[in-house]
Order: sequence, then structure tokens, then C-alpha cells
Amino acid sequence: MARTIGSHGPTTMEAIRKAGLRLIFQHGYEAMSLRQLAAEVGIQPGSLYNHISTKQELLSELIQDHINDLLRELEAALRDRHGAVERLRVFVAFHVGYHMTRKREVFIANSELRSLDPRNYEAVVALRGAYERRLADILTDGVAEGVFDVVDVQVATFAILSLLTGLCSWYRPGGRLTKDAIIAAHEKLVLSGVMPRSAEPAPVGGGQSGHTPG
Amino acid sequence: MARTIGSHGPTTMEAIRKAGLRLIFQHGYEAMSLRQLAAEVGIQPGSLYNHISTKQELLSELIQDHINDLLRELEAALRDRHGAVERLRVFVAFHVGYHMTRKREVFIANSELRSLDPRNYEAVVALRGAYERRLADILTDGVAEGVFDVVDVQVATFAILSLLTGLCSWYRPGGRLTKDAIIAAHEKLVLSGVMPRSAEPAPVGGGQSGHTPG
Repeated sequence: MARTIGSHGPTTMEAIRKAGLRLIFQHGYEAMSLRQLAAEVGIQPGSLYNHISTKQELLSELIQDHINDLLRELEAALRDRHGAVERLRVFVAFHVGYHMTRKREVFIANSELRSLDPRNYEAVVALRGAYERRLADILTDGVAEGVFDVVDVQVATFAILSLLTGLCSWYRPGGRLTKDAIIAAHEKLVLSGVMPRSAEPAPVGGGQSGHTPG
Repeated sequence: MARTIGSHGPTTMEAIRKAGLRLIFQHGYEAMSLRQLAAEVGIQPGSLYNHISTKQELLSELIQDHINDLLRELEAALRDRHGAVERLRVFVAFHVGYHMTRKREVFIANSELRSLDPRNYEAVVALRGAYERRLADILTDGVAEGVFDVVDVQVATFAILSLLTGLCSWYRPGGRLTKDAIIAAHEKLVLSGVMPRSAEPAPVGGGQSGHTPG
């Protein structure tokens, strides 16, 4: 846990977290030195230790806090939502909306798992597993309700999370599409993707190799 | 371009590339020193310069070669395939199969764009754009053929690529599912995802906030 000393403790800690996010996002965890971090915050290197005990602790807290926030806000979004279709719709809108504002956290949570100590790695993997399970449960429920047709729930869970998180690599506020339009585009892909396939359209023009009609 | 000197040039160069992939994957580009790279290959640091002129050149070549391979093999896979449905099916199977064997290259191509010099960055973005365009063209064709229903081709292109590339973060050879089963699971999600939605099941319980019917 981060220690905070003096009246500026929380503020300085917040500045350290923000600077850490920026530096790790830009240079990678291993390349970031605590000296660099202190300079970015505008404090003496020695003062860092009033707030964090190690660089590893900072990384682990940044990632774990991110996933804990995600879990807590997802719970709130899903409260009183019923039916797998509706819950999946809520999940998609929540995940896309949330990730529009957390580009750095998401990048670090994905790219710096390699830099976590074994104990922290296990803790993060468990948290991620809890979040993944929320989606897997929705898919499993939908299959049981007869509204979803999913080849493999685990693969679908990972694939849908990748699909939804992908926007972190291209989304910029103020772009061509509104937030709602971006959510709608993702919702269509995911909802259609897990629903039973409609009668497959007959090939239009050009033969479809691999299918021998008749 | 890499220079090769002496009869062991190509072999050493191959070892440098493999060691570079491993080290950047594990530690990040910025944290990898050329001294570390030379040690990993088992040559003197000075000897590296017989093969690569800078660390930046190595990174840029690793990423560009990866995308060039991807583009070339995709072209081969799509040759003589007609119709958007069939071409999308081929794209999915190709992309998933290819990425099962290129975990490190994919990770680096995604996480170390930040480390490319502006000129190399532009070159990589152009190559990625060419690959993305192959998928965008298939989706556009499918919409024109009336077989696909896509809210936004650009968002769908990015989302599908993220979905398909996501397996790099979890796939291990010899796991629960065969390669074909994994491809089939992805194919269902993507093909259903872009097809017109079948009659939508009525929402089960719970109101849909944000939708005011009537």
C-alpha cells in the first residue's frame, strides 16, 4: 500500500501515479527509472519513497486499481439488467465507453504483465479472470436461454474482449464518429456475432470455392 | 538495410533478429541495450555493427518484415477466392492461423510503435494500412453484394482485426482446442457479426434505458 506523509500526500501520490502512467506508456516499465519519475513529478528522488516503496509496487497498483475500477463499475452498470441479450448490450456499451478514457491503463495492463513479480502477476491474473468471468457468464446464460449460438464460450470471451478493447489503439476524442455511433458499431458486431446465424445468404456472383452447391 | 559480412553473415543476422525479438518482447525496446543483445547472440558488442547499424534499424526491420510477410501470405491465401463471404472466411482462417505462430512479432508491432523514429513509424503505419485495407475492401464488397450489414466499415475493420489478433495473448500450442476448432470459433463470431442480424429476440425482463419505445 502506498504511504502518504504530510498534507500534500494524496496530491503528490496522484501526481506520481499520473506521471508513472505517462512514463510507462511512453518508455516501458523497465526503461523508466525512479529518478526519471521523480523529475516528471517535480520532487527529489528520495521523496518518492514517502509515497511508494518500489517501482514494482507502483506498477502493480496501477494495473490492479484499473481492473478493480473496471469490475466495480461493471457491477453497477449490470445491476437490475436481466436477460443475456440485454446484459451483453450493457457490457458492450460499458466496456467501450470506459476504455475510451483509459488508453494508458489498458496499454500498460496488457503490455506490462511481463514486468510483474510472480505474486503481483497472480493477483492481476485473478482480477482479470473475474472480469472475464462476467462476460463468460453472460454468454453461457445466453446459450442456456437459447438466444446465443457460441462455438466455444472461452474463445468467444477472449475474442469479444479483444474486439472491444481494440479501440484503445485508434480512438481519439473528437474524431469522425460520436461515442454513441462507436458503441453502436461494436454492439452490432458483438450481438450479431453471438446470435444464431441467420440463413446464410446465397452467394451473389462469383463462385464460393469450398462450397459445392447442390 | 542490414549489412552482412563474411560467410556467417546471414546466420548471425538471423540469430540477432531472434535474440532481438526475445529481448524486446521480454523487456521492451528502450530497456534493451545492444550490449545485452550481443551477449544474447554470443558475439562481441562491436561485432553487432557488422550486421545492424542501429537498434532502431533492427526494430524497424522486425516490424516491417512481419507486416510484409503478413501481406504477402494474405495475398496468396486470397488468390482465386471470390465473393465477400468466402473471402472473409479465408481472411479469418489465415489471420488466426498466422498469428498462432507470431506472438512476439505481433506484440512488438503493437507495443513498440511508440519507439519508432518518425520515418519508420510512417512506413509501418502505411504497411498496416495496406493490410487493414484488404479487410476493409472485403467488408465494403460484402455490403455492396448485400450479404453484410456493417454499421461502419472502418470501426468494423479495426474491431475484427483486434478480435482476431487477440488470440496472441492466450494461445498456447497443445491446449484444449485444436487449431481448426479455434479458427471455427473465430469464424462464427466474425461471419455472424457482419451479417444482417436475424430477427432479434425480444428483450427478456428489465427495461432498456436509453431506448424509449414508441
